[in-house]
Amino acid sequence: MNYKIVLKIIGNVLVYEALLLLLPFAIALTYSGEDANSFLITIAITLIVALVLRNIKIKDKSMYAKEGFLTVGLAWIAIAAFGALPFVISGSIPSYIDAFFETVSGFTTTGATILTEVESLPKGILFWRSLTHWIGGMGFLIFVLALVPTIGSNSIHLLKAESPGPNPGKIVPKIRETAKILYIIYLVLTIIQTILLILSGLSVYDSVIHALGTAGTGGFSNMNLSVGAFNNPAAEWIITIFMIIFGVNFSLYFQLIKGNIKGFFKNEELKYYLLIVLVSIVFIAINIIDFNNGNIGLSIRQSSFQVASIISTTGYATTDFNLWPSLSKTIIMILMIVGAMAGSTAGGIKTIRLVIMLKAVRRGIDKILHPKRIQSVKIDGKVVDEETISGVLLFIAAYSVIYLIALFIVSFDGFDLVTNITSVLTAISNVGPGLEMVGPMGNFSNFSKLSKIVLSFCMLAGRLEIYPMLIMFSKSIWKRTY
Amino acid sequence: MNYKIVLKIIGNVLVYEALLLLLPFAIALTYSGEDANSFLITIAITLIVALVLRNIKIKDKSMYAKEGFLTVGLAWIAIAAFGALPFVISGSIPSYIDAFFETVSGFTTTGATILTEVESLPKGILFWRSLTHWIGGMGFLIFVLALVPTIGSNSIHLLKAESPGPNPGKIVPKIRETAKILYIIYLVLTIIQTILLILSGLSVYDSVIHALGTAGTGGFSNMNLSVGAFNNPAAEWIITIFMIIFGVNFSLYFQLIKGNIKGFFKNEELKYYLLIVLVSIVFIAINIIDFNNGNIGLSIRQSSFQVASIISTTGYATTDFNLWPSLSKTIIMILMIVGAMAGSTAGGIKTIRLVIMLKAVRRGIDKILHPKRIQSVKIDGKVVDEETISGVLLFIAAYSVIYLIALFIVSFDGFDLVTNITSVLTAISNVGPGLEMVGPMGNFSNFSKLSKIVLSFCMLAGRLEIYPMLIMFSKSIWKRTY
Repeated sequence: MNYKIVLKIIGNVLVYEALLLLLPFAIALTYSGEDANSFLITIAITLIVALVLRNIKIKDKSMYAKEGFLTVGLAWIAIAAFGALPFVISGSIPSYIDAFFETVSGFTTTGATILTEVESLPKGILFWRSLTHWIGGMGFLIFVLALVPTIGSNSIHLLKAESPGPNPGKIVPKIRETAKILYIIYLVLTIIQTILLILSGLSVYDSVIHALGTAGTGGFSNMNLSVGAFNNPAAEWIITIFMIIFGVNFSLYFQLIKGNIKGFFKNEELKYYLLIVLVSIVFIAINIIDFNNGNIGLSIRQSSFQVASIISTTGYATTDFNLWPSLSKTIIMILMIVGAMAGSTAGGIKTIRLVIMLKAVRRGIDKILHPKRIQSVKIDGKVVDEETISGVLLFIAAYSVIYLIALFIVSFDGFDLVTNITSVLTAISNVGPGLEMVGPMGNFSNFSKLSKIVLSFCMLAGRLEIYPMLIMFSKSIWKRTY
Repeated sequence: MNYKIVLKIIGNVLVYEALLLLLPFAIALTYSGEDANSFLITIAITLIVALVLRNIKIKDKSMYAKEGFLTVGLAWIAIAAFGALPFVISGSIPSYIDAFFETVSGFTTTGATILTEVESLPKGILFWRSLTHWIGGMGFLIFVLALVPTIGSNSIHLLKAESPGPNPGKIVPKIRETAKILYIIYLVLTIIQTILLILSGLSVYDSVIHALGTAGTGGFSNMNLSVGAFNNPAAEWIITIFMIIFGVNFSLYFQLIKGNIKGFFKNEELKYYLLIVLVSIVFIAINIIDFNNGNIGLSIRQSSFQVASIISTTGYATTDFNLWPSLSKTIIMILMIVGAMAGSTAGGIKTIRLVIMLKAVRRGIDKILHPKRIQSVKIDGKVVDEETISGVLLFIAAYSVIYLIALFIVSFDGFDLVTNITSVLTAISNVGPGLEMVGPMGNFSNFSKLSKIVLSFCMLAGRLEIYPMLIMFSKSIWKRTY
C-alpha cells in the first residue's frame, strides 16, 4: 500500500475544503453573524493539516485500486472530521460526535440530523450544512479532479471508488473533461431550481438552501418543519420535480445535450425508475385520502412530494408521514431500499441493481425450465456480463450484512424496533428521516455515541457504495508491504 | 413440460397422504372423538382423487428439472389442500382458507396459527396438526421416495427441488437408500425425545405432540401458552437441546454413525451455527435479566429456549418474548433470517449460505487489494465453485424479492409495521410466531384472506427454497410444448 500518495491526495482534498469554507464564511459576514470566526479558525486548522500532508515527498507515484479505495474512504472521513469544526466552534452543536454525525450526514447527502431545532442557528452555519450536501452529492474527489491536474498516475481508481452505480467505466476516457461537464450540468440545474424557487415566493436564502439540498438529494432544511414550513404548493411541486430530476443518471443529461433524445427516453433504468415513482404515488395518494379528510388534491401533492423525496433519497418532508397508514409507511420503507438511478446524486441500492437482480432471478427460473438454452441478462438490449451480475448480487449482499450488523449495534440503545429498523435503513440509503423517533418531525439526537458512530459509518458506506469503507476492516491494508 | 407424469406423481403422493391420515383417525377413535368422521371423509375424498391421478396413462416417462420442480411445488399445495379438509369438516376451523393456511403452516414446519384457542380442539385434530410438521420436516416426497419404487426415470430432480440447502447433490447416488437412512435417523431421534419428555413428567400425548413439533422444527403445540404452559424446566431443556439437534445437517449424523466423529466436529457450518446460538443466548440472557427481576437462571433458560426455538425455526415459546427489550427482539428477528443448517428440517436462509455470502464479500474486498491474486471461497477447506456462490447470492436475492412483495401486499391490511415485517419474515423463514399481533401469544387470524394466501405462499416458498414456487409464475410453464 502506497500510504504516502494516499495522504498527499487527502492533503489536496483538504486544501479545497478550506477554500470551500470561504463561502459560508462570506455568508456569515454578510449576515454579520458571530459564526464567521468559527469558519476562520476551521480554515486555518484545515489549511495547516492540508499543507503538511500535501508536502509529503513521494517517490513512488503508483496508484492502484486499493490506494484509490482507501483514499476515497479516508478522504471522506477527513472532510467530515474537519467540516464538523465550525459547528463545534460556533457552539451550534457542542458535542464533536454530534457535529461529526451531522457533517457526515451532510456530505453523504443523507440529511439525518441530531438537531432538535434549526431555525435559531446562524445563517453561515446553516449554509455550510447545506453546502456539504451539494458538494457530497456529485462527489468531493471528482470535484477536486475537475479542478486539479491529475494527482498520481491512475486517478481513475479514485473515480471508480467514489462514483455511484455498478458501471462507472463508461465516462472514463477523459476524466477531467467528464468531471467538469458533470459539474456544469449539476450547477446549471441547481441555479435553475434556485430561480424557480425564488419565483415561487421563497426568499433568496431559503431558495439557495433548498436547491442545494435538492441537488445533492440531501434533505437538510433551515426550517424545523422542513419544506412543509413554507406552506407553498408551487415550491413543493418545484422541489418534487427537481428531486426526481436529480435522481436521474447524469450521463443521460449528457446524452440529451449531445442531442440523443431517443436514447434518453429509451433508457431502461429510467423507465423502471419513473414507473416505480408513478406506482408509488398512486398507491400512497389513495391510501392517505382518509388521512387528509378526503382532500384528493392534497393527497396527490403530499404523495408525489414524499415519493420523490424518499426514492431520490433526499428526505425533505411536507407532512409527518410517520402518521400515515401502514401501507404508505411500508412503501416509503421499500423506496428507501430502492433509491433512484445509478450515476445520480441519490443513495440506496439503485434501480439498475434491482432490475439486474430481478432479471438474474428470472434467469435462474429459466435455467431450470430450459437448462440447455444459453440465457443472458440484458439491459437496454445489451448483454450484461456475468462479472457485473455477480458484482451486483455481492453489493446487495454486502449492503444487507452491514445493515444487519448496524441494526444489531443500534438496538443496544433500547429504542423501539421501527425506530431502529428505519434509522439504519435511512442512514445506509442516505435518505435522512425514518419512522417513529427518527420520523420527519423527529431527529437522531437521543442515540448513544456508539450508535451515532455506527450510523455515520453506514452513511459513508452507503454514499461510497460499501467497499471504500469495508476495505478498512481488512487486516492486510494496515500492514506495510513495502 | 410432461404434465402427465407430474399429475401421476401427485396422485402417488396423495395415496400416501390418505394412508397417513389413518394415524390421526386412529387417535381420534382412541379418544372416541367426534373428529374421527372428518378423517374418514377426507381419506375417501383424497383416495378418489389420488387414484384418478395415479391411473393416468403415461407414454413419456421422461422427467427433467422443470418437471421435478413443478411436481414438488404442486404436490405440496395438493397435500395442504387435502390435509386441510379434516379441520373444516370437523368444524375446528370453519373457514377453508384458514384451514389451508394452518395446514400449509403445518407441512412447511412453520407453526404459525390462525387459531385463537387450541386446547378445546379434539385430540385427533391436534395430532394431525402436529403430524404435518413431522412429515413436512423431512419432506413428503422424500418420504414417498423412501417407500415407493422409483417413479419416473429421474427422481433426483424431485429430491433436488425438495431438499433444503445449496448442495443436496452429495447424498445422491442411492436415493432410496439415503432417503430411508435419513428417515430412520429422524424417527429414532423423535422417539428418544418423546421418551425423555415422558420421563420429564409430560403426558404421553403431550410428549408425542411436542416431539413431532420439535423434530419437524414446526412449533405447533396443543397448549395455548405453548411449551410455557407446562412450567416444567426439565421439559424445556429437553426441547431446547432437541431443537438445536434438529437444526443440524442430517448428513452429519450419517457421518457420526459411520464413525467419522472428527469430520462431525470439524464441520465449518456446524461451528458457525453453534457459535451464533451461543452468542445469541449470552446477549439475550444478559438483556432480559431486568425483565426477569434479576433472576439469572430463569434468564438463561428462557434465552436458551428461545434462541434454539427461533434459529431452528421451530417457534415454540416459554415466555412472551414480544415483551422483551428491543435488543433481544432484534436478535430474534435476525435469527429468523439466519435459520439453522442446510440439510436439517429448519427453514430460513441457512447458516451455510450466510457464511458463503460473507466469504464472498470478503473476497470482493481482497480482489480490490490484490487484483492479480487468484482468490477462492473455501468451506471445510474445499473450494466452493463459482456456480454455487452465485447460486447462493441469487437465492438470497430471490428470498428478499419475495419478502418485499409479500410485505407490500400484507401491509394493505393496515396492521402496524412490526406485525407486518415479522409476519412475513416468520412465514418465509418457517418460524411461526413473529412480534406484536403475531407474537408468541398472538396469532394470524385477523389477516385478510388475501394476506393469508400470500403468507401461505411465503411459507411454501421458504420450505421449498423458493424455486418450486417461483417457477409457477413463469408463463412458459403453462404452455404446452409438446
